[in-house]
Amino acid sequence: MSNLLDNYKDINDVKKMSLNDKKKLAREIRKFLIDKVSKTGGHLASNLGVVELTLSLFSVFDLNYDKLIWDVGHQAYVHKILTGRKDKFDTLRQFGGLSGFPKRCESIYDFFETGHSSTSISAALGMARARDLKHEKYNVVAVIGDGALTGGMALEALNDVGYRKTKLIIILNDNQMSIGKNVGGVSKYLNKLRVDPKYNKFKADVEAKLKKIPNIGKGMAKYLEKVKNGIKQMVVPGMFFEDMGIKYLGPIDGHNIKELTDVLASAKDIQGPVIIHIITKKGKGYEFAEKNPGKFHGIGPFNCANGELDAGSSNTYSKAFGNEMVKLAEKDDRIVAITAAMRDGTGLKSFSQKFPERFFDVGIAEQHAVTLAAGMAQANLKPVFAVYSTFLQRAYDQLIHDVCMQKLPVVFAVDRAGIVGEDGETHQGIFDLSYLTEMPHMTLMSPKCIDELPYMLKWALGQSFPVAIRYPRGGDSVCLNPVENFKLGKWDCISNEGSVAIIAQGKMVQNAVLAGKKLKEKGIDVRIISACFIKPLDKEMLNRLVEESVTIVTVEDNVIRGGLGSYILEYVNKLNKKVKIINLGFDDKFVQHGKSDILYKLYGLDPKGIVNSVLEAAEVSHIF
Amino acid sequence: MSNLLDNYKDINDVKKMSLNDKKKLAREIRKFLIDKVSKTGGHLASNLGVVELTLSLFSVFDLNYDKLIWDVGHQAYVHKILTGRKDKFDTLRQFGGLSGFPKRCESIYDFFETGHSSTSISAALGMARARDLKHEKYNVVAVIGDGALTGGMALEALNDVGYRKTKLIIILNDNQMSIGKNVGGVSKYLNKLRVDPKYNKFKADVEAKLKKIPNIGKGMAKYLEKVKNGIKQMVVPGMFFEDMGIKYLGPIDGHNIKELTDVLASAKDIQGPVIIHIITKKGKGYEFAEKNPGKFHGIGPFNCANGELDAGSSNTYSKAFGNEMVKLAEKDDRIVAITAAMRDGTGLKSFSQKFPERFFDVGIAEQHAVTLAAGMAQANLKPVFAVYSTFLQRAYDQLIHDVCMQKLPVVFAVDRAGIVGEDGETHQGIFDLSYLTEMPHMTLMSPKCIDELPYMLKWALGQSFPVAIRYPRGGDSVCLNPVENFKLGKWDCISNEGSVAIIAQGKMVQNAVLAGKKLKEKGIDVRIISACFIKPLDKEMLNRLVEESVTIVTVEDNVIRGGLGSYILEYVNKLNKKVKIINLGFDDKFVQHGKSDILYKLYGLDPKGIVNSVLEAAEVSHIF
Repeated sequence: MSNLLDNYKDINDVKKMSLNDKKKLAREIRKFLIDKVSKTGGHLASNLGVVELTLSLFSVFDLNYDKLIWDVGHQAYVHKILTGRKDKFDTLRQFGGLSGFPKRCESIYDFFETGHSSTSISAALGMARARDLKHEKYNVVAVIGDGALTGGMALEALNDVGYRKTKLIIILNDNQMSIGKNVGGVSKYLNKLRVDPKYNKFKADVEAKLKKIPNIGKGMAKYLEKVKNGIKQMVVPGMFFEDMGIKYLGPIDGHNIKELTDVLASAKDIQGPVIIHIITKKGKGYEFAEKNPGKFHGIGPFNCANGELDAGSSNTYSKAFGNEMVKLAEKDDRIVAITAAMRDGTGLKSFSQKFPERFFDVGIAEQHAVTLAAGMAQANLKPVFAVYSTFLQRAYDQLIHDVCMQKLPVVFAVDRAGIVGEDGETHQGIFDLSYLTEMPHMTLMSPKCIDELPYMLKWALGQSFPVAIRYPRGGDSVCLNPVENFKLGKWDCISNEGSVAIIAQGKMVQNAVLAGKKLKEKGIDVRIISACFIKPLDKEMLNRLVEESVTIVTVEDNVIRGGLGSYILEYVNKLNKKVKIINLGFDDKFVQHGKSDILYKLYGLDPKGIVNSVLEAAEVSHIF
Repeated sequence: MSNLLDNYKDINDVKKMSLNDKKKLAREIRKFLIDKVSKTGGHLASNLGVVELTLSLFSVFDLNYDKLIWDVGHQAYVHKILTGRKDKFDTLRQFGGLSGFPKRCESIYDFFETGHSSTSISAALGMARARDLKHEKYNVVAVIGDGALTGGMALEALNDVGYRKTKLIIILNDNQMSIGKNVGGVSKYLNKLRVDPKYNKFKADVEAKLKKIPNIGKGMAKYLEKVKNGIKQMVVPGMFFEDMGIKYLGPIDGHNIKELTDVLASAKDIQGPVIIHIITKKGKGYEFAEKNPGKFHGIGPFNCANGELDAGSSNTYSKAFGNEMVKLAEKDDRIVAITAAMRDGTGLKSFSQKFPERFFDVGIAEQHAVTLAAGMAQANLKPVFAVYSTFLQRAYDQLIHDVCMQKLPVVFAVDRAGIVGEDGETHQGIFDLSYLTEMPHMTLMSPKCIDELPYMLKWALGQSFPVAIRYPRGGDSVCLNPVENFKLGKWDCISNEGSVAIIAQGKMVQNAVLAGKKLKEKGIDVRIISACFIKPLDKEMLNRLVEESVTIVTVEDNVIRGGLGSYILEYVNKLNKKVKIINLGFDDKFVQHGKSDILYKLYGLDPKGIVNSVLEAAEVSHIF
């Protein structure tokens, strides 16, 4: 029955379709999306929300000339379907398969790669300005959600957009959500604009009538102008955008293809920047996703018929973090939690329900979150900012300038550190060991197993300086004994025999332990050390290893450049004694999408890879 | 004649003064500021602009309880004068003396340290929320300039402020400038608000009248409500802030102490967040600064009588960069320049005048600037973003995510790298060698002298990948022969004899050359290598040095953690041969303010310090 979608060949096919066929195609696409994503997992709700928008964009614009940029990019599935990638959807987010985000290597119609929020207006403005300087003629369109709009850089971009009269079309896809429910003053403002679409007609009527008012006399004219503007303010939503120099159109029903194509077509003719405010429903057309768009934002494989997740979700670091936060907060009312639009993902849902007044969701605003925490710490609270490693990159400067420089006791719960898997390049948390250790006054920890995380969190909250704890997505593969009492800069020696020491961090300790078992089977003993502190290093232990001329293999799920292994090299080098050190990690490259296990194997960080490196190191050092 | 200022003892003395005495004190403070800053150099114009504001704040608030946060903080001189630091102004910005920014170690009245722009609202909100959770009662006041307001994190903070009804006073100090003239849509919007203060009376009148309109009948009531809101929109400026949930008061004449104290006093009673929009004049009361506030923003010592700078400004890296940009742009119309409110500081004034349509000042918005450049590069322009090293930290994520991941050919002219001197901790550019080398696909260069920078820039603009060039503030101390033709990852060997090699970067090469001369005098030859490429390293040369068992001393004006020396260690370690390496740089700490020469000496990076390290290294290696 999917004959329209099956026969869809050229990106511009939709232009030739009747409105009814477009509506039919929309239904087919929804069915296709639900079917495919239920098998591969992926971002469903946001894509169901933009089916009509994408069809309308393809109806009005010609992507052989015009440029289209999807903010965040997880809602680009429909775009992918319509640009020749329909048949690859079985490989979505799988290793070697279709990415869940726009990728220039996949299609000439992916003009700019996205993944993190709030970048699209900046990139689109750059393209539009390039076009004008080169006297070319094409449209540039950025599609940005209302959640992403509150990210600082989107507002920086709007400020710049409004300054020069660059022709640019911004589509504000307003579903009143980021991943969870949207928060903040901008959302409040949009709420005010988010009136019944019929309101537009009223607005048009009033504007038409205003045009007919004659301007009689000088003083009267001035007065009338004021009245006109006043009434315009009342009836023209989006005056703030207009005051900034950006024409505002909307709000428009984002599921009405007729209305959408009309407004998009008219936007093409506007000289200068325009913002089109469309209202969509996340999860539209799939009842389970409509009811629970948060669950269906990024989801694993599920049962289409009842919307149930296939695998029962097991024990995760995020859950352990969230549970311990509740426990600690019950005993200490100075503990507060901050998230940047990631309440559920970071495990803070229960905390937010138990301590609503001590829970702060600041929206997609990592920079603000860090400095807000700094202010709280200065005023004697114990703030914990739970954030994904890759998003904390947004607050690099605030970490240095507002937290570390003043040595304020903020705790950073750095979730999704290391390989996150299917989200790929843009979301891997493989830089934090480097960027957090280069900050003076920062203490950085990494638990070797889930059970260790609560103890670490408790320890961190007892300190008078900033502490970051970084831990991976998902759960454990090996059961280990957690350290319960930490001493600053004191590592955890798991096994202590042999002339090779594996110094690993976080989940890599588990792979090291498995490697140790394999080596033991070969009759080789290795020392295994969990670098529970990345910063400061355990100098005593390193001194001892060097004195005993032990060969060191470092293992981290981070880029090697500037990471744990590099930090150890810096210290050991000062001891002025030759020791063989091998650094395992990611070698100066971005890491593609795919299951974590596949990727760890690919980069030699799985148990077998570690075994090979140990054997190689031992051979070079003439040890065995 | 400065008897009021001379006798000022307690922070609350101003509370007891008559209005006339306050005005007199303001005049005395202005005279004091001009006199002192003319000798030490410093931020003059912004401080002259907030004399009345600071006096009014001290009149209304009691800093023994209330908290006051100065955004950026370079305008806190008056605050310092009134909080017991008047007598230390001769040491302003000197090594060991008073900092040019708020410092908690200087005074209990410096509640939060600032330096970079746009952080104050976040920090203040954190404090205000802490106060409420602890059921304490005090006021929290953030003072932020209109320039800083366009920085993304300020807008993120405003969004959060408007969300909950946290009591907080934000003073928008609107002087229509950042360092230069302000730009952008927000500025356009503020312009609209920036009407004659008398307008307020009109507004109050209209509001009073509106209150008297009776609400008759249901339908009529609804209609009247709309009309009321409409008229309110017309007469109440700042409706956008109000829509976000923040009460707006203003605009107020920021040099009228009576008006200021009245509005501040009334703001104390408002439950919930309030923004007070005050209009000030940068440089107020000193004619040369009023005429040219940009020049007197951050200024060296000058002649009070005529406003002339003492020292003729010599040849600087910024100037050389600006000149070459003009030359290259004349030949290639794809070259465009971007700045984040630092046109003059980065040397782009002449470019902006010659190529106004190819020059983009985006305001204080480094994140947007980087991704704007990425968009331009994607559309085949050759964008150059000129930015201070410390401010580029704000765009760490955009560098990785929007530029490096797509390998887009953006050129970063990273000015003020290394020690910047008198601005101190918050402004030293001592992290970029670490954070830029950890980004895959990034190429990083550093010229050893001013004359080399133009060749480097030209080379960078010829590449198909991102290139950052980092160079220091000010000029050269040694004349060296520039490399004119660069080959990717090929270092410049300045002298090639001896069993010790100094591998230095940027200006540190000059110190290395001077150290080489001193060593030569002692009869010791050293090799001196300029690591014009920090990334990629010159592996061939490193291979050779290691083969020849040369002892290596690395010198960089960056933290050692993750910097050039660390990068060299990572590579040399893989060669599996014992070589003595010593890393010179900053050892995991923030670097205070003071003249560069003093600081380099303090950290052993001056020629003498390098000599000592070479001798030490040689001794350990049993070389000489």
